Amino acid sequence: MIDYQQILDTIQEEMSYRDVKGKVASYIPELAKVDPKKFGLHLYRNEHEFYGFGDHEEKFSIQSISKVFTLSLAIRNLGTKVWERVHVEPSGNPFNSLMQLEQDRGIPRNPFINSGALVISDILVDVLDNPKKELLEFVRKITGEDHIDYDENVAQSELSSGYRNIALVNYMKALGNIKCDVEKIVDFYFYSCSIAMSCKSLAKAFMLYANKGAILHTGEQVLNPSTVKRLNALMQTCGFYDESGEFSFEVGLPGKSGVGGGIAAIHPQQYSVAVWSPVLNKKGNSELGMKALERLTTLTGLSVF
Amino acid sequence: MIDYQQILDTIQEEMSYRDVKGKVASYIPELAKVDPKKFGLHLYRNEHEFYGFGDHEEKFSIQSISKVFTLSLAIRNLGTKVWERVHVEPSGNPFNSLMQLEQDRGIPRNPFINSGALVISDILVDVLDNPKKELLEFVRKITGEDHIDYDENVAQSELSSGYRNIALVNYMKALGNIKCDVEKIVDFYFYSCSIAMSCKSLAKAFMLYANKGAILHTGEQVLNPSTVKRLNALMQTCGFYDESGEFSFEVGLPGKSGVGGGIAAIHPQQYSVAVWSPVLNKKGNSELGMKALERLTTLTGLSVF
Amino acid sequence: MIDYQQILDTIQEEMSYRDVKGKVASYIPELAKVDPKKFGLHLYRNEHEFYGFGDHEEKFSIQSISKVFTLSLAIRNLGTKVWERVHVEPSGNPFNSLMQLEQDRGIPRNPFINSGALVISDILVDVLDNPKKELLEFVRKITGEDHIDYDENVAQSELSSGYRNIALVNYMKALGNIKCDVEKIVDFYFYSCSIAMSCKSLAKAFMLYANKGAILHTGEQVLNPSTVKRLNALMQTCGFYDESGEFSFEVGLPGKSGVGGGIAAIHPQQYSVAVWSPVLNKKGNSELGMKALERLTTLTGLSVF
Amino acid sequence: MIDYQQILDTIQEEMSYRDVKGKVASYIPELAKVDPKKFGLHLYRNEHEFYGFGDHEEKFSIQSISKVFTLSLAIRNLGTKVWERVHVEPSGNPFNSLMQLEQDRGIPRNPFINSGALVISDILVDVLDNPKKELLEFVRKITGEDHIDYDENVAQSELSSGYRNIALVNYMKALGNIKCDVEKIVDFYFYSCSIAMSCKSLAKAFMLYANKGAILHTGEQVLNPSTVKRLNALMQTCGFYDESGEFSFEVGLPGKSGVGGGIAAIHPQQYSVAVWSPVLNKKGNSELGMKALERLTTLTGLSVF
Repeated sequence: MIDYQQILDTIQEEMSYRDVKGKVASYIPELAKVDPKKFGLHLYRNEHEFYGFGDHEEKFSIQSISKVFTLSLAIRNLGTKVWERVHVEPSGNPFNSLMQLEQDRGIPRNPFINSGALVISDILVDVLDNPKKELLEFVRKITGEDHIDYDENVAQSELSSGYRNIALVNYMKALGNIKCDVEKIVDFYFYSCSIAMSCKSLAKAFMLYANKGAILHTGEQVLNPSTVKRLNALMQTCGFYDESGEFSFEVGLPGKSGVGGGIAAIHPQQYSVAVWSPVLNKKGNSELGMKALERLTTLTGLSVF
Repeated sequence: MIDYQQILDTIQEEMSYRDVKGKVASYIPELAKVDPKKFGLHLYRNEHEFYGFGDHEEKFSIQSISKVFTLSLAIRNLGTKVWERVHVEPSGNPFNSLMQLEQDRGIPRNPFINSGALVISDILVDVLDNPKKELLEFVRKITGEDHIDYDENVAQSELSSGYRNIALVNYMKALGNIKCDVEKIVDFYFYSCSIAMSCKSLAKAFMLYANKGAILHTGEQVLNPSTVKRLNALMQTCGFYDESGEFSFEVGLPGKSGVGGGIAAIHPQQYSVAVWSPVLNKKGNSELGMKALERLTTLTGLSVF
Repeated sequence: MIDYQQILDTIQEEMSYRDVKGKVASYIPELAKVDPKKFGLHLYRNEHEFYGFGDHEEKFSIQSISKVFTLSLAIRNLGTKVWERVHVEPSGNPFNSLMQLEQDRGIPRNPFINSGALVISDILVDVLDNPKKELLEFVRKITGEDHIDYDENVAQSELSSGYRNIALVNYMKALGNIKCDVEKIVDFYFYSCSIAMSCKSLAKAFMLYANKGAILHTGEQVLNPSTVKRLNALMQTCGFYDESGEFSFEVGLPGKSGVGGGIAAIHPQQYSVAVWSPVLNKKGNSELGMKALERLTTLTGLSVF
Repeated sequence: MIDYQQILDTIQEEMSYRDVKGKVASYIPELAKVDPKKFGLHLYRNEHEFYGFGDHEEKFSIQSISKVFTLSLAIRNLGTKVWERVHVEPSGNPFNSLMQLEQDRGIPRNPFINSGALVISDILVDVLDNPKKELLEFVRKITGEDHIDYDENVAQSELSSGYRNIALVNYMKALGNIKCDVEKIVDFYFYSCSIAMSCKSLAKAFMLYANKGAILHTGEQVLNPSTVKRLNALMQTCGFYDESGEFSFEVGLPGKSGVGGGIAAIHPQQYSVAVWSPVLNKKGNSELGMKALERLTTLTGLSVF
């Protein structure tokens, strides 16, 4: 019998001794203002059993973790047709994606790199009447928390310096894999990234992926088990940029990180977990967050492998 | 309660109707002679419960599946020091590895691409007295089958056209990540690839990775559970060349393929499975083999995700 | 004593027997309409000695040949400061430029690839009050021909499908090498490319570069000799996309080609020449045009080498 | 009337005031021993008119300048068939060549990058009875100097660390563009690079290329004018690694550099010149040598452009 409370206590204590060497994300002005000492973790086993410590109830910018939600929403609306416009392979490195994009006629390597998430944004802008509203409704529904919202300051902060993403969308438009207006796509993309959530809310939302697609508190099936299996496989191989292999190797759970310093991960049928510490390592993932999750799978002795 | 026998019967029947469009590997002359219609599968649940069909007891060239065995042997001898000389990230695409090698001072992206396996070969040639003999002993030990051996014809066939691998070793030697004599390394590497095994023997060997590092028939612990977790994570993210993401996505099991048409995969604590069909898809993986395993995880409803 | 008239007659006859295998540029709808059989050549030795044949007085879209004029205008306005924002090295291949751009913080390899010409456009949009008007005045001045103008149909035709160029400008803006509004830059760039000129007018304009910077018919010095030497060096190493080496090797003259099928080239202190044939080879250069110029330097026995 | 003596005096004086910031080549142990203060220049106008200063009569390792001699010898023996095995385009950057090699089935971009020179070595090893002897005879013949020889220490010094070149040859052998034994090719290649010559001898040898293929002191035609035109074009576009554009732009002459700190260049029908200063800039070309030649074309007012 695993004592989760004791394991979380141990992790909190161990992490308090640790030096962190990285830096808070600075290219988005609004994110650079966050206190680098913030640290929290929340773990859900089921509706009645959950654990947390530190700043686990404070909201932060989930950034790329939102890519899991937008992809889920796209699949709900378009089904497997999504995979005609984005691949499911890990991407070796940043510049590679552009050569690859050219060779593959604009089909991004996976939906968790920027080009891939922009194609997913294009899909949602195309098929939904009000994509921003419907994304928010989806996230509120799976968490049961109506207070979850976009952070306007963060969204505006990104919009003002998003030339690289505008470049990517135009490049893919030239290659025939973008349908909608570039500005609308980029606007939706940045709003998605600006969603603010606490570790507790994130862990609750990710129970969907630990739970074969059923919402934790209502049991409603919003994704079918086969889709969830595939989403988890994608998180496992592509969820951590150029460090996806390392995360698999050290932690061994499907998950997704964001430059806001958050990581959400799941152990199928066992638990979901979200951690937040804004200081990032060189690859753009939360330094303390990764270490905390490595300790979690080591101390519980549970990983998917 | 899963009826494995019935599921295997279903897979065998479904696959018999399937058209295959790919080709048998042709760049190694000896492999090009294999009958493309060969097809077999074997699954082990434990010492007393195993299932198989078709050509599951016929030996074939395991090729890159041997990379799992050489890596295991290297870790047994050198421990985590292995990771100072090879990374654990999926490799985007073929040419990328060379740019990446240059940037990373000759440290290959992972031990399952050629450059990585050649570094592992260098380690074994360096630390073992008789690496070819000891590799064979290791494979015989974990299977309990003394008849397993190298296929001299295949080994010679590869040696005569191995210029690309000689190029890779010299390139890494220039970058400081190769210690031993180039010829010895390449000779050992090609002999490793030439090991001939049946699906049944391969599945038996892979029970090591399904079984936290203990040998199926003796219970002897030859790898510790933490190492096995990491090896499985590597197979999950890097085991299928440029198709590792696709395999994770469709099948959802850690595994490793070879250009001989074999695939070995495991479900931790559940089973190991090996399949053989020599016709390869464009990415160099067994076309029918991948499909058969996709059916296996779908029909059992079991995958790591 | 070289008999230019006879040499041009020979070239015209030889070319009339030649099969061409390439195609007219199709990605700009308006250019795809041009008659592929058009063929003309004009050579200026000095104000009173000039020769021509075929469609040498018919206007066509000069496209990238305009990059020589915009660069000249940028240097006239900004001097050697131009070279802080664009390099002078040949570019290996298309995708390379994007990796290179990233490594070089957005500094394009040379002003004759698209990214480089877009930086030059940004400079002109930044420093000139009315860049479109002033570019036209410059071209009219060096030719003495007031009828030269933009082709509105071609300009609009490009604007409607210029996503790749918009991508490049945004990418360089993200890297800090673009100052002005993206739309204005791209608009100016496409208008530059749409200038319509005959071989005769082009050859007259290029006498500037054969003539150490002095206008043919007025003698006015609009570029200093040192600038002209550098512009000619750039045309020699970078004037023909991925075929610059081949053009140097076969023809041995500094020059610039455009996808409209035109080529302008010069022999310092000897002559300027312009040729037009819309059918392009695989590298995007006029197939017959290159051959005609190869014959010209062979038959005259004159090349810069 | 140009006063070459006075111009050379000016250059010698100006260069004596200049700080150099680069370093002597260190990857070949024997070259690292050379005195960084060595500096000499020699210019030939014709058999009876020549000028020099500094260490212009001291021998140094010509390294890659030898690629011009081996290419000349290959063309003398194989004619234009040489161009079936090597292209004539400038190479964007170092790693590019490997991707490019793969795409082009092992055909190097040009004969002045390492892969290209190794193909030329393969050609000479294949067609000549005693390639080392015949190369030396060729160089002795065009200079009339029988004392010119290989530097055994330099040759051995390179052989002991030539893994990267061995890698390139094996890679091209895998792609079908190498015929001979790898060791013989690499041995010949390193011996070629080890030839020791003074600026004076080099300038004498390069009069061949300034002189339409005729030997300076005998008038014997050893290359035809059309071949020389093409060799000069190649030197112009590809003679200075990644700095070929810059050299064209600043100096405006066809030439070739070596990591020994030498540069040889020519002005067709005007002069040949060789300069030596061992300190290299970041791109591997002689820092002072390039500057001296820039001054030469500026002070004489003569360049090919």
